[in-house]
Amino acid sequence: MPVEILSKIRVGSASGGYYHRVKHASTATGTDMIFGLFLPTSHSYTNEQPTPVLFWLSGLTCDDTNFANKAGSRAFVEAEKQNIALVMPDTSPRGDGVPDIDSYDVGVGAGFYVDATEEPYNRNYQMYSYVTKELPSLLETEFGKLGCLGLKSITGHSMGGHGALTIALREQKEWVSVSALAPICNPTKVPWGKKAFELYLGNIESGKAHDATCLLNEKSAFDEILIDQGSVDEFLQNQLSTDALLDGAKQVGQNVTINMRKGFDHSYHFIAAFIEDHVKFHGAYLKVKLEKVS
Amino acid sequence: MPVEILSKIRVGSASGGYYHRVKHASTATGTDMIFGLFLPTSHSYTNEQPTPVLFWLSGLTCDDTNFANKAGSRAFVEAEKQNIALVMPDTSPRGDGVPDIDSYDVGVGAGFYVDATEEPYNRNYQMYSYVTKELPSLLETEFGKLGCLGLKSITGHSMGGHGALTIALREQKEWVSVSALAPICNPTKVPWGKKAFELYLGNIESGKAHDATCLLNEKSAFDEILIDQGSVDEFLQNQLSTDALLDGAKQVGQNVTINMRKGFDHSYHFIAAFIEDHVKFHGAYLKVKLEKVS
Repeated sequence: MPVEILSKIRVGSASGGYYHRVKHASTATGTDMIFGLFLPTSHSYTNEQPTPVLFWLSGLTCDDTNFANKAGSRAFVEAEKQNIALVMPDTSPRGDGVPDIDSYDVGVGAGFYVDATEEPYNRNYQMYSYVTKELPSLLETEFGKLGCLGLKSITGHSMGGHGALTIALREQKEWVSVSALAPICNPTKVPWGKKAFELYLGNIESGKAHDATCLLNEKSAFDEILIDQGSVDEFLQNQLSTDALLDGAKQVGQNVTINMRKGFDHSYHFIAAFIEDHVKFHGAYLKVKLEKVS
Repeated sequence: MPVEILSKIRVGSASGGYYHRVKHASTATGTDMIFGLFLPTSHSYTNEQPTPVLFWLSGLTCDDTNFANKAGSRAFVEAEKQNIALVMPDTSPRGDGVPDIDSYDVGVGAGFYVDATEEPYNRNYQMYSYVTKELPSLLETEFGKLGCLGLKSITGHSMGGHGALTIALREQKEWVSVSALAPICNPTKVPWGKKAFELYLGNIESGKAHDATCLLNEKSAFDEILIDQGSVDEFLQNQLSTDALLDGAKQVGQNVTINMRKGFDHSYHFIAAFIEDHVKFHGAYLKVKLEKVS
């Protein structure tokens, strides 16, 4: 599985790690895919000890660069301190032949982290398999055992927050910790989710297997799920359903910390302000796991 | 001079200040102009004590949002600590009727912080007057004496670094301190500067009045000029002329600190990594000035 390093620059601070853009042919999506990768200076391709990795999943309309460009700097500084890598996948397949639709909330830039079952999307829109299987495997083999021994945590924003929560809840043994910023918490009940699930999965009912609130039908393996949410987020009322997740969590005894951030909206300004906290949160859990497995 | 607040959101941290986008009719450019404005929580419209302000000038192709979106977060956190405001002007006039040319390095997005004398640019491209006169005056009158009593410092990137250095060196009594990231140091000698000066000022010779290396013909009023520069900046060799400025500074006994940052390029990743240092640098000088004038 050869990879091409499109670019590599130092980021974050004078002695910080390096941010790469990496291109590879994906078997999951049948397209070339590009992802962002921050490697802390502590990472070595020949280390005995693997470097833990935090997956960042972006929201609607984003590609692999938005997070790195707009909120990366504060994440990179903290990841360097915590000695963890950050991987920033694209939000969908893209390029010639990938079916698209003239809409910002489905199609290219809006894969919703599911494996599409419906024509014509099922050929390329296999973002669940891409993020949960192909990419972790590639990181282990091509980047010095990155994230191996189960040293993986996951977070994301909006559609990517939905992705982080649902992937972690579906594959609780695969992820050390999970958090989200302004996630879509109950997608089967809101316009964004309904539209995407109908298109990719054929109906909303099938979307329940990718709905954090539906998936949280019993206490999970995670001690704590951390969520930050802006109080003046323009999508809070109609798309995010934070309360539904909180209610569900309460019923099953799941510890979910929701920080309502007064005056913050849905933008990357919000993400940038709180991403350090999330990297710290995952860093602490990954450190405990690293001590266990090494 | 009425202003319209297009948006206002909290940024930087849970208890941080607010980032505004402000629109107003500019007499200097004859167009509507939009600028970004970060106000720390310490700022009050009714305070006796004015809030110091740091001007940020952006580089080629940018508008008022690029810096705020891509490097703002780390700047906002430090500005909040230092109790200083940040103002982020556009890089040129824009909109219907503004003469443009199909090129990224002159015309819209590339005003070079000069007052154009040549047709058709002289009607709108008056960015020197806009940044040095109209905008400071508007901040004082519309935003609670912001930056009054000479409490203004200036910095910027690339073309904006050129703007910061030249404006400060031309108007040494008006600015408390000056710094730059990857500035165009000797524009009359490089392709970007030659092209812009010919277009806006009619010839390269006239550009010497807006060339930091030419302007530094004697020791300035500034104790120190701080410059950060990426070592793998793709424009370092052909456009930035850092060495020319350093040589000139040495000859006249001007203290210029140049930090060569190994592994960094010309991008906002570089700016984001070092903007805190620059806000701290200016914050210290502005604090001394504030104590003197209050």
